[in-house]
Amino acid sequence: MSKARLGNVLIGQSGGPTAVINQSLVGIVETCRESGRFDRVIGALHGIAGILDGKFVDLGRESKKTLEAVARTPSSALRSVRKKPTTEECRAILHRIEELNVHAFFYIGGNDSAETANLIDQMAREEGWELHLFHVPKTIDNDLLVTDHCPGYGSAAKFVAQAMMGDNEDNRSLPGIKVDVIMGRNAGWLTAASVLARRHEGDGPHLVYVPENDFSMSSFLGDVERTYKERGRCIVAVSEGIHAKGGAQLIVEGEKDSHGNAQLSGTGALGDFLAAEIKRNLGSKLRVRADTFGYLQRCFAGLASEVDAREAREVGRAAAQAAIKGKQISGSIAIRRKDKRAYEVAYDVIELSRVAKNTRPLEERFIQGSNDIHEDFLEYVTPLVGELPKTAHLTEHPL
Amino acid sequence: MSKARLGNVLIGQSGGPTAVINQSLVGIVETCRESGRFDRVIGALHGIAGILDGKFVDLGRESKKTLEAVARTPSSALRSVRKKPTTEECRAILHRIEELNVHAFFYIGGNDSAETANLIDQMAREEGWELHLFHVPKTIDNDLLVTDHCPGYGSAAKFVAQAMMGDNEDNRSLPGIKVDVIMGRNAGWLTAASVLARRHEGDGPHLVYVPENDFSMSSFLGDVERTYKERGRCIVAVSEGIHAKGGAQLIVEGEKDSHGNAQLSGTGALGDFLAAEIKRNLGSKLRVRADTFGYLQRCFAGLASEVDAREAREVGRAAAQAAIKGKQISGSIAIRRKDKRAYEVAYDVIELSRVAKNTRPLEERFIQGSNDIHEDFLEYVTPLVGELPKTAHLTEHPL
Repeated sequence: MSKARLGNVLIGQSGGPTAVINQSLVGIVETCRESGRFDRVIGALHGIAGILDGKFVDLGRESKKTLEAVARTPSSALRSVRKKPTTEECRAILHRIEELNVHAFFYIGGNDSAETANLIDQMAREEGWELHLFHVPKTIDNDLLVTDHCPGYGSAAKFVAQAMMGDNEDNRSLPGIKVDVIMGRNAGWLTAASVLARRHEGDGPHLVYVPENDFSMSSFLGDVERTYKERGRCIVAVSEGIHAKGGAQLIVEGEKDSHGNAQLSGTGALGDFLAAEIKRNLGSKLRVRADTFGYLQRCFAGLASEVDAREAREVGRAAAQAAIKGKQISGSIAIRRKDKRAYEVAYDVIELSRVAKNTRPLEERFIQGSNDIHEDFLEYVTPLVGELPKTAHLTEHPL
Repeated sequence: MSKARLGNVLIGQSGGPTAVINQSLVGIVETCRESGRFDRVIGALHGIAGILDGKFVDLGRESKKTLEAVARTPSSALRSVRKKPTTEECRAILHRIEELNVHAFFYIGGNDSAETANLIDQMAREEGWELHLFHVPKTIDNDLLVTDHCPGYGSAAKFVAQAMMGDNEDNRSLPGIKVDVIMGRNAGWLTAASVLARRHEGDGPHLVYVPENDFSMSSFLGDVERTYKERGRCIVAVSEGIHAKGGAQLIVEGEKDSHGNAQLSGTGALGDFLAAEIKRNLGSKLRVRADTFGYLQRCFAGLASEVDAREAREVGRAAAQAAIKGKQISGSIAIRRKDKRAYEVAYDVIELSRVAKNTRPLEERFIQGSNDIHEDFLEYVTPLVGELPKTAHLTEHPL
């Protein structure tokens, strides 16, 4: 393997942040620096927007101490962007990359960011460039194709589990009907993680609705009524992406980003709508509450899953190593689960086009009917989240 | 001090749960059991509702291991209730207490629960009963009179701080205007704790609105516009209890409990309303998001403040010791801060009537103008919350 200098490295972060996306950033930076093969490790601020606007920082001069502290800080330290580049913008980005003598470009993000990377990669190949371009996966939605799971998901799932554990105790103490809206535009992976909160007989969530199923208001109301009658209380976990038959949204929101995604988060509208429907149909005197877990799910400070943090670092390192080895011109990193029982993973380099744009729904085998998650899902999700706090109930000996 | 048997003990939990209210329960149970002075330690399920309905459990038979595990579990293990007893119900409660040969009754709750305790205590005294009745304080709102702070507050403040720390990084990475609605019906204590998230120059929350100030929509919109222009982003912490001049609610909600409190939590309505007003007045293309921290603030599993957990245990123990010593017939426990710098506290027994019903607003010296918290507040709140996770930003060396 030649030890020749390879020019510079460029890194950007894109899409919704996660609690561990900076681990991936630091994994790339440290691997590139350790290799001694690059002149400069450059960061673009706000992803491709920073490349277009010429907003760069020198990551080669950050101290190890700062990098380690940044790795443990939630959200995207290089700032983020939600932007799909036009053909002209792709060309401008490539020119900037040439200007900066960039040998390897790393783009940390989800499926939309992989699409952006793929567009730039395709143009680079068409025009005969020798750019190494790697997408480094992150998304709390866990909906990237190919990979067993996505960095960022384990930490968000841990937040959802601990929130639901607490909410279950809250609802047990002051009974009523509680609707909890959980992130997940296209896929129910994060909503499914709420079942980690079932620690004792009778614990919620008692009903779980994911966007992989069409949502029927009448079935929902029937489920809630039956559960409330049986248990005297009912906690519902609902994905923000639930929709009526044919994909129709339950309530209409206005805003869309340049990838065509409607705004679902940052509003309590869906939860309030479902709570109002329950009251209107099942009784206005019922105690019905709704919480929308919102942005807290993806960036809560100090709650990252250890496994998730470690793997996020490793996908960054794996991408940097792939670029240094040079076997592949471009690609994305996928996590492969080698051993289920001992939980061991490997990192594969896969083709960019395989993760770009499209998303992976919650697997069918993990969905139980129209309103629950199959217990097999626990085997899948538990190692990603790590240890959860212990909760206990009184034995309640009779007098 | 006589070692005579004193009859039985009765304990109830009431009002909104907290992350550490079970510490107080266990503090009472263990102190009463250790004293050897009581025949039975009885728990009423759902507070006074359980007393009226005859729903009791024998806490004397719970193992130490179970009690310790319950102490670390959020929310009210004996279940809770929001109920103000009528005169007839007070009489029925007293008769049940006589039937059960109760020497000491402990009611763990906030100001409404103290009012309930006070009503029962007054009737007991008028009718010449020798009932020891102690209110044991808890509330995430931190709005009880006399006490320096309330058990439950430190843990909720820790949640708010960590949520806001993460949200600040989130908003820094994808800039826009963010409204975070925080619990606090009458008092801004919990909303004020959001300023713990200011760790670096420019960190949010940039604006803080508490119910101690009248809320003016035009000032609010002016504040947001100015901050957004200056910083390119704006995070707002808003108490759910903010109101227009004269106490008028900004949006009208329907539900009220028997203490006359309107439902403020369990809905995203206030946040969505403020976000909509911002868009309507400052520009429909602005990225405006709202999160309502909701019930997660009070019962999140695995995030209790250590100081808060210890003090919640101690107020339970102090109440039990007061009942055993018998110097006071009834009372509540207040935490007194003995030494500010070393943070040391003492537990005082105070008269029930002093904490019943009324609430304590955020002190004036902690409020900075119409939209911020004074830095002196940090000295007050920091020891209650304990250590927060570290976050760091890149130095951003220029290329």
